[in-house]
Amino acid sequence: MKDRGRLIVISGPSGAGKSTVVSKAIEGRSDICFSTSVTTRKPRPGEVDGREYFFVEPDRFKEMVENGELLEHAEYVANSYGTPRAYVEEQLEAGLNVLLDIEVQGARQIHRQMPEAVKIFIIPPSMAELRRRLEGRGTDTERAIEARLIRARQEYAEADFYDYILVNDDADRAAAELSAIITAERCRAANRMHWLKQEA
Amino acid sequence: MKDRGRLIVISGPSGAGKSTVVSKAIEGRSDICFSTSVTTRKPRPGEVDGREYFFVEPDRFKEMVENGELLEHAEYVANSYGTPRAYVEEQLEAGLNVLLDIEVQGARQIHRQMPEAVKIFIIPPSMAELRRRLEGRGTDTERAIEARLIRARQEYAEADFYDYILVNDDADRAAAELSAIITAERCRAANRMHWLKQEA
Repeated sequence: MKDRGRLIVISGPSGAGKSTVVSKAIEGRSDICFSTSVTTRKPRPGEVDGREYFFVEPDRFKEMVENGELLEHAEYVANSYGTPRAYVEEQLEAGLNVLLDIEVQGARQIHRQMPEAVKIFIIPPSMAELRRRLEGRGTDTERAIEARLIRARQEYAEADFYDYILVNDDADRAAAELSAIITAERCRAANRMHWLKQEA
Repeated sequence: MKDRGRLIVISGPSGAGKSTVVSKAIEGRSDICFSTSVTTRKPRPGEVDGREYFFVEPDRFKEMVENGELLEHAEYVANSYGTPRAYVEEQLEAGLNVLLDIEVQGARQIHRQMPEAVKIFIIPPSMAELRRRLEGRGTDTERAIEARLIRARQEYAEADFYDYILVNDDADRAAAELSAIITAERCRAANRMHWLKQEA
């Protein structure tokens, strides 16, 4: 009897080190895939429909929103982006865990649409360390860094619906914890009740 | 900032292979200890108070029950056994995960007394396999095996309050899952909310 996969939603302030933690966590695991978004933006050279994105016309996107075909959606630089429910469901049914890196507002939309999604919030060990990391990147102005810190504090205040908090003071440890969460969530009783029903 | 440990309650029918799975899961982990029970039975030669058990007089045991000092308690062959709340709390406060192998009725008592305890139900892949394992031991009569199978079915029917189900068809995989659950439960948002409060 195969277990269903889980939708794993990952958020955290810019500079928390999400992508490093995620790539270390999924290393060597074949039970995890990334979600593919729907977008109204035009494909760039080399991009393939269904690989980087599902590319759709604005009318079709609007229809998807109205029909509840998207788990979340948002506007970004005059284009629309969303997470297609049917695509995610297909992967989960096939037994794959689906990973989604998304900001807090999108995660909250998903939480409403699919409460059983696993929500993980990745944070730096302190705001001082977050500032150091953002400064260390050398890509943001002082003003942009201040804006990111204010935004991080807002996100912390809104993060009450996350199931797990990972403190990224050590990327290897945080990655091991993320990997453990994905493994553990497969074992949830709600996901395995069928094992108690057999011959019982 | 140190995270608090978690109380991990493990149950499952006789023959599910709990002890093998548990010993593989805790191998090399220093963040896990076993709970020590209180009992009214007399110490046997070599047993040390506070190591094998906390040995108490029946009057003191009765008092502990009345004062709510026990997370669960039961009678067994004219002696009383129980799990001392204060001892468990001390280990959790020190950051240790406390493991407790206990049957379904005791687990339900703990669930009532400490709802945040992590409840894990370990089962064999099928009733037919459970029968094979019990027969393979060669320690039970056919009648005793039938009784164990009936009991297992009852336990399955009462196991609706467990958080996780582990299917022990492969002890190494089940142990890896148990270890992942213990790691993951440390990362629960409820256990780490203090990280969001700092400087926010």
